[in-house]
Amino acid sequence: MSITDYGAYELGGLPAEVTIYEVGARDGLQNEKRTVPVEVKAEFIRRMLAAGLRAVEVTSFVHPKWVPQLADAADLLGRLGPAPDGVRMPVLVPNERGLDRALDAGVGEIAVFGSVTETFARRNLNRTVDESLAMFAPVVERARAAGVAVRGYLSMCFGDPWEGAVAPEQVGKVAGRLAELGIDELSLGDTIGVATPGQVVAVLDAVEAAGVPRGRVAVHFHDTYGQALANTLAALRAGVTTVDASAGGLGGCPYARSATGNLATEDLLWQLHGLGIRTGVDLEALAATSRWMAEQLGRPSPSRVVKALAPPDDDAATDDAAPKEATDA
Amino acid sequence: MSITDYGAYELGGLPAEVTIYEVGARDGLQNEKRTVPVEVKAEFIRRMLAAGLRAVEVTSFVHPKWVPQLADAADLLGRLGPAPDGVRMPVLVPNERGLDRALDAGVGEIAVFGSVTETFARRNLNRTVDESLAMFAPVVERARAAGVAVRGYLSMCFGDPWEGAVAPEQVGKVAGRLAELGIDELSLGDTIGVATPGQVVAVLDAVEAAGVPRGRVAVHFHDTYGQALANTLAALRAGVTTVDASAGGLGGCPYARSATGNLATEDLLWQLHGLGIRTGVDLEALAATSRWMAEQLGRPSPSRVVKALAPPDDDAATDDAAPKEATDA
Repeated sequence: MSITDYGAYELGGLPAEVTIYEVGARDGLQNEKRTVPVEVKAEFIRRMLAAGLRAVEVTSFVHPKWVPQLADAADLLGRLGPAPDGVRMPVLVPNERGLDRALDAGVGEIAVFGSVTETFARRNLNRTVDESLAMFAPVVERARAAGVAVRGYLSMCFGDPWEGAVAPEQVGKVAGRLAELGIDELSLGDTIGVATPGQVVAVLDAVEAAGVPRGRVAVHFHDTYGQALANTLAALRAGVTTVDASAGGLGGCPYARSATGNLATEDLLWQLHGLGIRTGVDLEALAATSRWMAEQLGRPSPSRVVKALAPPDDDAATDDAAPKEATDA
Repeated sequence: MSITDYGAYELGGLPAEVTIYEVGARDGLQNEKRTVPVEVKAEFIRRMLAAGLRAVEVTSFVHPKWVPQLADAADLLGRLGPAPDGVRMPVLVPNERGLDRALDAGVGEIAVFGSVTETFARRNLNRTVDESLAMFAPVVERARAAGVAVRGYLSMCFGDPWEGAVAPEQVGKVAGRLAELGIDELSLGDTIGVATPGQVVAVLDAVEAAGVPRGRVAVHFHDTYGQALANTLAALRAGVTTVDASAGGLGGCPYARSATGNLATEDLLWQLHGLGIRTGVDLEALAATSRWMAEQLGRPSPSRVVKALAPPDDDAATDDAAPKEATDA
């Protein structure tokens, strides 16, 4: 059965349509230890596009020494060809050298990746927050001059594994400075998955107060503590209309103490479609894609919806199972 | 780290305090294939009470032929002794014979278990919905005459694995009739975990329209599709203040095609405490209890919070892990 079999029920104050920004191909695969063949990546992305996703982050022009899994970025982009009309196919770009490669490959959108905490900036970018913003400035400027859209990611917006609590004002401060560089969209990341719904609203308000309009903000929740969908609901209610997710729940933060990471796109779709919110994505087709990708990777998808929608012979429980509970005392 | 390390942020329109109705010892264990020793069950319940839970469903007086795992109900109640002041320790009672045994054991609260769909009533209770209500009538009447409180469960309130969609009005109708029997609390179950937040509000409204005051309603969500916490948030916003959950995420519906079932109490606590909502429960102590119980059962807890809070040596990722991503292109 799919969500349509159970009906859709609107809830007041939510958007009619949501854009899903799909990160499975880049964020989901980047920490995969075994090299995934480039043609498998290409096919994964083609299937996601065929399922109706309209914003699919494809790869990263990070140095192969740091992320060997994505060393095939140019090859992958060549196989995929230009983004179809109305489709965003951004690539992550860490610095000017990466931007050069992205421009050579003819991409229409890039993403840059920063941190709101000093500890993570130092550990992930080997720079202070100020230094990383200074590094992004020419990247954003040159991209925009070339007519290339820019998304900015900020990680650790709701908590940091080394620093603990992160004040919403701190997020607002860094978000405001990143936005001043001229980015088109800002994705606020709960990299370790600790956020709760009231905090989501507090951070969104702080970011808006720092001058970033709500319409340019995306949310990027991790499901490490099981909170991602409740946080998404709070963000939608607060006016956010772009939500990051990863097909099949691929990937996550290597610093979080758990196998669980990115919010699974299928779990998100179940919620959105059940709320009558349009996404343009075919949930069954995407779940089939994630099952196919799980086979390629040799391990099951952590997405609860992907598991629950698996064909009956994948699982012991069937419709004809004898009742396990009865009332004769 | 615990949620307190990341701060608490209130969200408007939510209750200041929530009662967690803990079902792990009964609903969580009833389908466990290997017999759990009665002293392990008693210790599990003692540890949950010590962690601060104040409503713990203990066992069921169902016939041992149907649920062999709970054949030790009277022995277990004897070991636990009477419920401490301010603590609810209800037992499930399927019929008058079960009630007799519960009254003999001196319990202060019972629970009866019905279905809003005919298919599940027939499969689980071997009766029509009407027949099951007729069976409950004398149970509720006699319990109340004996000064014993009664909780009513209704399953399949948001979807049925055989019938598909379930109309909120159907839930209201059965809920209203069950309430007329004189129950003190009504728990609305999403037995297969398919509900979404708008549907939660629609069902709660239908139940209220059928004459059951919001203050007597509890919600019982399953996490099969990952929706339980978002649904909980919608229910809290709609005025519900009692939420069913299972320590460590034990148990679930054997008819749902997935290993995942009951909402884990720890995942719920992370959300509630992050929202600044009081529960009286110590999250770390409960997670430790669930880890202990997982060892007794010989398999890991499916709770995301229990996994995420596990001591570092349970997991490969540590605070000193080398960055997996870097920006030098």
